[in-house]
Amino acid sequence: MTSITMIEAAAGRLNGHARRTPLLTSPFLDEIAGRRVLVKPECLQVTGSFKFRGGWSAVSALAPEVRAKGVIAFSSGNHAQGVAAAAKGHGVPAVIIMPSDAPKLKIDNTRALGAEVVLYDRAKEDRDALGAKLAAERGLTLIKPFDEPLVIAGQGTTGLEIAAQAAELGVTEADVLVCCGGGGLTSGIALALEAKAPGLRARPVEPEGFDDVARSLKAGTIQRNDRLSGSICDAIVTPQPGDITFPILKRLCGPGLAVSEDEAMRAMALAFLRLKIVIEPGGAVALAAALFRPEAVAGDAVIAVASGGNVDADLFRQALERYA
Amino acid sequence: MTSITMIEAAAGRLNGHARRTPLLTSPFLDEIAGRRVLVKPECLQVTGSFKFRGGWSAVSALAPEVRAKGVIAFSSGNHAQGVAAAAKGHGVPAVIIMPSDAPKLKIDNTRALGAEVVLYDRAKEDRDALGAKLAAERGLTLIKPFDEPLVIAGQGTTGLEIAAQAAELGVTEADVLVCCGGGGLTSGIALALEAKAPGLRARPVEPEGFDDVARSLKAGTIQRNDRLSGSICDAIVTPQPGDITFPILKRLCGPGLAVSEDEAMRAMALAFLRLKIVIEPGGAVALAAALFRPEAVAGDAVIAVASGGNVDADLFRQALERYA
Repeated sequence: MTSITMIEAAAGRLNGHARRTPLLTSPFLDEIAGRRVLVKPECLQVTGSFKFRGGWSAVSALAPEVRAKGVIAFSSGNHAQGVAAAAKGHGVPAVIIMPSDAPKLKIDNTRALGAEVVLYDRAKEDRDALGAKLAAERGLTLIKPFDEPLVIAGQGTTGLEIAAQAAELGVTEADVLVCCGGGGLTSGIALALEAKAPGLRARPVEPEGFDDVARSLKAGTIQRNDRLSGSICDAIVTPQPGDITFPILKRLCGPGLAVSEDEAMRAMALAFLRLKIVIEPGGAVALAAALFRPEAVAGDAVIAVASGGNVDADLFRQALERYA
Repeated sequence: MTSITMIEAAAGRLNGHARRTPLLTSPFLDEIAGRRVLVKPECLQVTGSFKFRGGWSAVSALAPEVRAKGVIAFSSGNHAQGVAAAAKGHGVPAVIIMPSDAPKLKIDNTRALGAEVVLYDRAKEDRDALGAKLAAERGLTLIKPFDEPLVIAGQGTTGLEIAAQAAELGVTEADVLVCCGGGGLTSGIALALEAKAPGLRARPVEPEGFDDVARSLKAGTIQRNDRLSGSICDAIVTPQPGDITFPILKRLCGPGLAVSEDEAMRAMALAFLRLKIVIEPGGAVALAAALFRPEAVAGDAVIAVASGGNVDADLFRQALERYA
C-alpha cells in the first residue's frame, strides 16, 4: 500500500535523476477556461513523460542482486521508455514488451535507450502472460505499469511538486486534472495531495469511449472498456483501473471527465501556441478538460497535468494544421 | 553600465513574475553533439521568450509617475510581447512599433496583451525616428530592445540561473551558446557568468548572412549587416551590435558562430522530438551550433540558450515535415 512516506522516499531516490518540471501559465489559456489554468508539463520530464518517475522509483528500490538480473515491462510506450532509462541509469538490462501498433517514435526511443524490445499483437495476445513467461525464463523482475505500490509512489512525486508549486502561486483550492490510464499517476498524485495540499483534489480525465475509470468511479466497482485500440490517445488506454489504484481513486478523487479526440488535438495546438510545449494526445486530455469543460470544474483555478509528449511528428502536424 | 549588482537587483524585481526555466538534456542530443548538451529553454518564459526578463526589469525600475504615462518599444515581436506584458503587469499603457512583415502570431499576441501596435515598413521607414516622435508626443518612456543597461540586466538573470543550474549538474567549464541579435541577452549572460561562473564562456550565435556580431568581434570594431530582412530567424536580425552591448561582448565573449537556416530548422525538429519544446528559428541557432558545429566548441559539455518559441504554425510544420 502506497503511503505518503513511500512517496517522499521515492522523491529522495529520484532527486538528481528526475526533473522538477515547472508549473506553466498563459493569460490566453486563462481566458479560454474562464479561470486560472496551471499546467504541469511532464512532457519535459526525462524520457518525455511522467513514467520515468515510476520506473526509477521501482528500479532503484530493488535489492542490488535482484536488480542486476534485469527488469521487464509491458507498455504502449511511455512506461517502456521510463523503465528502459531507469534500467540504463542503474546499468542493468531491460526487456520491454510493446504492442506492435505503438507509435514508432516510442518503439525507436525504447530501443535507443538500450532495451530489448519484444513486440506483440494487442488484439490477439495476452501481454501479461507473455511478460510473466519471459520474466520466469530470465529471472527478470516485472515492473508493472501502474498496479505496483513503488510505481505509484514514483508518480506521486508529481503531486508533491504540484502541492508546493501551486501554493507558491497562491493556489490552495482547485481541481487537479490528470490524464488517466490505469490510474498510477492519478492515484499517486491523489495520495500526495491528501497529505500535502488537502484543498487540491485529483480528478481523472480520459478519452471518450475509453472512460473506464470515470464509469468505475460512478458505479463504485471496476468497469472495463469495450475497446482497447483505435484511439490516438494510446498512451492512456488500458482495459480497466488497477486493483491497487482503484480503491485509492475511489477514496480520494472527484468525478472523472472525458474529452473527445478532437478536443485533445485542439489542446495540443493550444499548448504549442501558448505554452511552447509538445504534448501527445493522451497527455493532452487533462488540459482539454480544463479548457473545454469549464462547467464541470469548480473554483477560480484549475491545474492540468500534461503527462507526456512522445507524439509522432505527422500527428502533431495534423493538430497544428487543424487548430493552430 | 550594467554590473552584476544591477543583474542581481533585476533578479529581485523579476522574482515571482518571470519563470525560472529549467535546464533540459537528452541522451539523443548528447550523441549528435558528441558531448553533453544542456538547453536553457527560454521559450518557456512568460510571453514565450527571454525578452520578458528585460522588459520587466526596465518597466519595474521606472519611477512610478514616469511609468504611469506609459512605455513604448520597437520590436520584430519578442521584445514587443515582453514589454507589453510587463506594462500590463504594472497597469500602464504600452505602444509597440512593429515591422509590417513580423510573424502574425507575434503581432496578434502583442495586441492581445493590451498594447497598441503601430506597424511600419522595415525597408522604407526609420523605426528609431518613428519611436522617438511618438514618445515625445505622448510622454512615453522608450524601452530599447537591447542597448539599455536595465534591459541587459534583466536578460542577465538568465545567466545567473545558468550558472547555478549548470553547477548542480556538475558543469563548471563550458561554452554557453546564445542566440544573438543586438547582443542584449548575450552581454547580460556574459556579465552574469563573469561574476558567478568564470569557467563558463558566452558565445554569440547568428544566422549565416546576418552575422554582424561575429564579424564585429573578429574585426574588433562594429560591423553592419548588408541585409535586414529575408531571414526566417527574424527575431535576431538587427543592423549591428549595440554601442553598449558591443564593448561587453568584446571583453567577455568567445568567437561568434553562424549556422544556416536549414540547420536552425533541423534544431527545431530535434527540440520537438527530444526535448518536447517549441522553438522559433531565431531561438534555435544556438542549439543548432551546439549540435552541428561540434568542432567549433571545446570541452565535455556545451550549454545552448533556446531564446524563444514564438513561431507560426506553418513554419513549424515545415520543420517537422523536413526533419522530424
